[in-house]
Amino acid sequence: MDVTVLNIPKINEVARLVDFYGCLLTEKQQLIFGFYYHDDLSLGEIAQELNISRQAVYDIIKRTESLLKNYEDKLQLWVTYQKNEKKIKNIKSKLMASNIDEKEKQYLLTVLDSLQEN
Amino acid sequence: MDVTVLNIPKINEVARLVDFYGCLLTEKQQLIFGFYYHDDLSLGEIAQELNISRQAVYDIIKRTESLLKNYEDKLQLWVTYQKNEKKIKNIKSKLMASNIDEKEKQYLLTVLDSLQEN
Repeated sequence: MDVTVLNIPKINEVARLVDFYGCLLTEKQQLIFGFYYHDDLSLGEIAQELNISRQAVYDIIKRTESLLKNYEDKLQLWVTYQKNEKKIKNIKSKLMASNIDEKEKQYLLTVLDSLQEN
Repeated sequence: MDVTVLNIPKINEVARLVDFYGCLLTEKQQLIFGFYYHDDLSLGEIAQELNISRQAVYDIIKRTESLLKNYEDKLQLWVTYQKNEKKIKNIKSKLMASNIDEKEKQYLLTVLDSLQEN
C-alpha cells in the first residue's frame, strides 16, 4: 500500500477521545498519536523520527484510532460527558436567574463548576 | 498450587468495579466473574460447570480482578463517581433547604437526579 496517497482524517473527535482514553494506550501508541494529532507531523516525519517505516506508523495510528473508538463504544465517557455538560449548564443558568440567596447561589455554582472539571 | 485452600476475598470493591468496567472484559471473563461474584459459586462448581480445571478458573478470576483494578487506577471512574455523588447530594440538600421557587426547585432536583444516574 502506498501510504503517501492516504488521507487520514485528523478529526477533532479522535483527538477528544485521547483526552478520555489516552491513559489506556501504550507508551508507543501515545507517542505516535501525539506526534500525529498534537504536533501535526506527517507519517513520513514520524517514521524518520522513530526510525520505522511509514507503513508501521500508519498501522499504529489506525490501530490506535480503532482502540479509542472501541473504548468509547463501550464506556461512552465522551457521550456522557457532553450530556452532563448540558445538564450542568442548564442548572447553572436556572440558578443564576433564580431568587436564591446570593451567597448560596455562588456556593452552588462553585460546586457545579467542580462537577464540570471531572 | 492447591486451590482448595485459597481464600479469594469476595470484596464489594471488585464487584463494584464490574459495574464500571465489566463491558471491557471478554465474554469468558464476564461469565466466570458472574458465576463467582454474582452467583456465589465456588471455584470447584465453576470448574465443573465449564468443564475446565479449578486452577484455570482461579487464574481467570485473578487476572480479571487485576484488569479491573488496572482500569480503575487509570480511569478512576469509581472514585470520580463517588466524589460526584457527594457533590450532587450536597447541592440537592442546599436546594431543598433554599427559598427558591418550588416549581424551579423540583425541576432542578430532577435534573440533578438524572446526573446521578450516569
